[in-house]
Amino acid sequence: MKTRQILLDHGSGGRLSHELITGLMLPAFDNAPLSELHDGARLDIAGMRLAFSTDSYVVDPIFFPGGDIGVLSVNGTVNDLAMCGAAPLFLSAGLIIEEGFCLDDLDRIIASMTSAAKNAGVTIVTGDTKVVPAGTADKIFINTSGIGLIPEGIIISGDRAQPGDKVIISGPIADHGVTILVQRKGMEFESDITSDTTPLNHMVGGMLSSCPDIHVLRDPTRGGVGTSLNEIAERSRVGIKLYEDKIPIRAETAGICELLGLDPLYIANEGKLLAFVRPEHVNRVLSVMKKHHAGKDACLIGEVISDSHAKVIMRTRIGGTRIVDMPAGEQLPRIC
Amino acid sequence: MKTRQILLDHGSGGRLSHELITGLMLPAFDNAPLSELHDGARLDIAGMRLAFSTDSYVVDPIFFPGGDIGVLSVNGTVNDLAMCGAAPLFLSAGLIIEEGFCLDDLDRIIASMTSAAKNAGVTIVTGDTKVVPAGTADKIFINTSGIGLIPEGIIISGDRAQPGDKVIISGPIADHGVTILVQRKGMEFESDITSDTTPLNHMVGGMLSSCPDIHVLRDPTRGGVGTSLNEIAERSRVGIKLYEDKIPIRAETAGICELLGLDPLYIANEGKLLAFVRPEHVNRVLSVMKKHHAGKDACLIGEVISDSHAKVIMRTRIGGTRIVDMPAGEQLPRIC
Repeated sequence: MKTRQILLDHGSGGRLSHELITGLMLPAFDNAPLSELHDGARLDIAGMRLAFSTDSYVVDPIFFPGGDIGVLSVNGTVNDLAMCGAAPLFLSAGLIIEEGFCLDDLDRIIASMTSAAKNAGVTIVTGDTKVVPAGTADKIFINTSGIGLIPEGIIISGDRAQPGDKVIISGPIADHGVTILVQRKGMEFESDITSDTTPLNHMVGGMLSSCPDIHVLRDPTRGGVGTSLNEIAERSRVGIKLYEDKIPIRAETAGICELLGLDPLYIANEGKLLAFVRPEHVNRVLSVMKKHHAGKDACLIGEVISDSHAKVIMRTRIGGTRIVDMPAGEQLPRIC
Repeated sequence: MKTRQILLDHGSGGRLSHELITGLMLPAFDNAPLSELHDGARLDIAGMRLAFSTDSYVVDPIFFPGGDIGVLSVNGTVNDLAMCGAAPLFLSAGLIIEEGFCLDDLDRIIASMTSAAKNAGVTIVTGDTKVVPAGTADKIFINTSGIGLIPEGIIISGDRAQPGDKVIISGPIADHGVTILVQRKGMEFESDITSDTTPLNHMVGGMLSSCPDIHVLRDPTRGGVGTSLNEIAERSRVGIKLYEDKIPIRAETAGICELLGLDPLYIANEGKLLAFVRPEHVNRVLSVMKKHHAGKDACLIGEVISDSHAKVIMRTRIGGTRIVDMPAGEQLPRIC
């Protein structure tokens, strides 16, 4: 009998990841906040509503156009907290470093984390550093966990999408994943694409002030927009209908995806969000988003429909309809 | 010029770790909770006092007598929170898994974490799983972060040791480190030593109920009792005097340390604590500790003295005095 093994796909954010989490972790750890399967847990401590989130960053290469593993590790957890509707406050940083790693690179990464924390308005209050022998880790891995405070009256959850809700995206997709891929492949062609990594909490704060009744927020990182929408559809037991011609993507990003046979719907973003809002709130929310740098290209890309099979479908540019399924395999390991 | 590189010693918990943290991290991240250099940060959120802690576990081997990386990762963060005087409530789990890792081993580790969380009375509410290509990590690394609630009136801090305070240890030292070492070396001799990993929060809860004015709590993990005491002496600007004949150690553990030329004072523990209390509180605290399994061998091992040079000294068995310095080098990488 073949030994059951962990595959790269188990970390893809796609179907196998989902099976690992729902098949192994959820039944074992068995509790309500975890079973929400959100970017972070919503907790009640002595009557106060907190969000708590964790993420490990293993991106390769560690430095790339538009950012590095340090800024990614801060923005990523800041955004996970913001997707719970929380104002991020405090971060932890756990570093696993390979023996022989260049101290100047560590200096650069720590400086990036410091500046990213300042931009986001959070404080890195506790940390841990482990060094492992050369060859037992690749350069550096960073875990950040974070705590945020959820304002009263805010209920953001993956199970709140309702038929009629409009789906907003904050800007063009797939830039982070394509940036990493271009770097890794050492592609020769000219490319100005940079990672979109950025903190979304200030924009989310503005959106929630203007419209407290946002139903779902999600940053489509690993697995991209396609995976995030499938997760939301499943949790809310609704269908989602997308309009391909509305989904923003830079021409250069789209070109590289086409060249490599990659579907940009499944490519990671690190500074984008999906928002599900009632139709009557769309204009208000969009106008707040457009005032922020992180949302200046925000637009409507779809809507929620009734569908007990929880499918995501897309009206294509040429007028057909295709199913946007949960991806089965890993497209890009170590993308974040 | 030689490139500045990360050495194993930077992760030892000893002098180079200390230099990395105080020389690079502290000036960069620059904030009060971090600069306390405690096992966790003490935070004030909307008038509520929380403890927040993080630790990455990279122990090798991942299964060992008395525990595994899963139970270690839960107990370790539970204990870090308890050392802040907090009641641990919620944990996150961030897994970095090597492609090809055996799923049955993952099952075992998740089951260990589940049972450890139950024993400690905490809930694992959020998580993240990354899979990296074979050869870019060694089997599995686990980060846990945790949140705990600090009861009113409790102020535990590394800078509160005062001349006259008595130093208590909760039981025999060096069992965890020696267990790992014996496993790793594949030593042939018979050994019944097992890791001491255990949650300390229930005992700490009892200690604080009986004596809220405990000055310092610290679990002497990486770097052992010798390193922890040096950190406390430095933070509090006091001297610490130890009595070698009072420090509990199992004969077998001591024997292996002697055989290998290791000083048990610098060997990691995973289920022990040091408590600094006023002389008039010693008996009360000891009697509570002895009622708990984790503290049944608790005893006095030293006292705090005035010393502006913040030295830790030890009265040896034969009546001499030696300085117990901060260790310069790494004795055992990947010990936790």
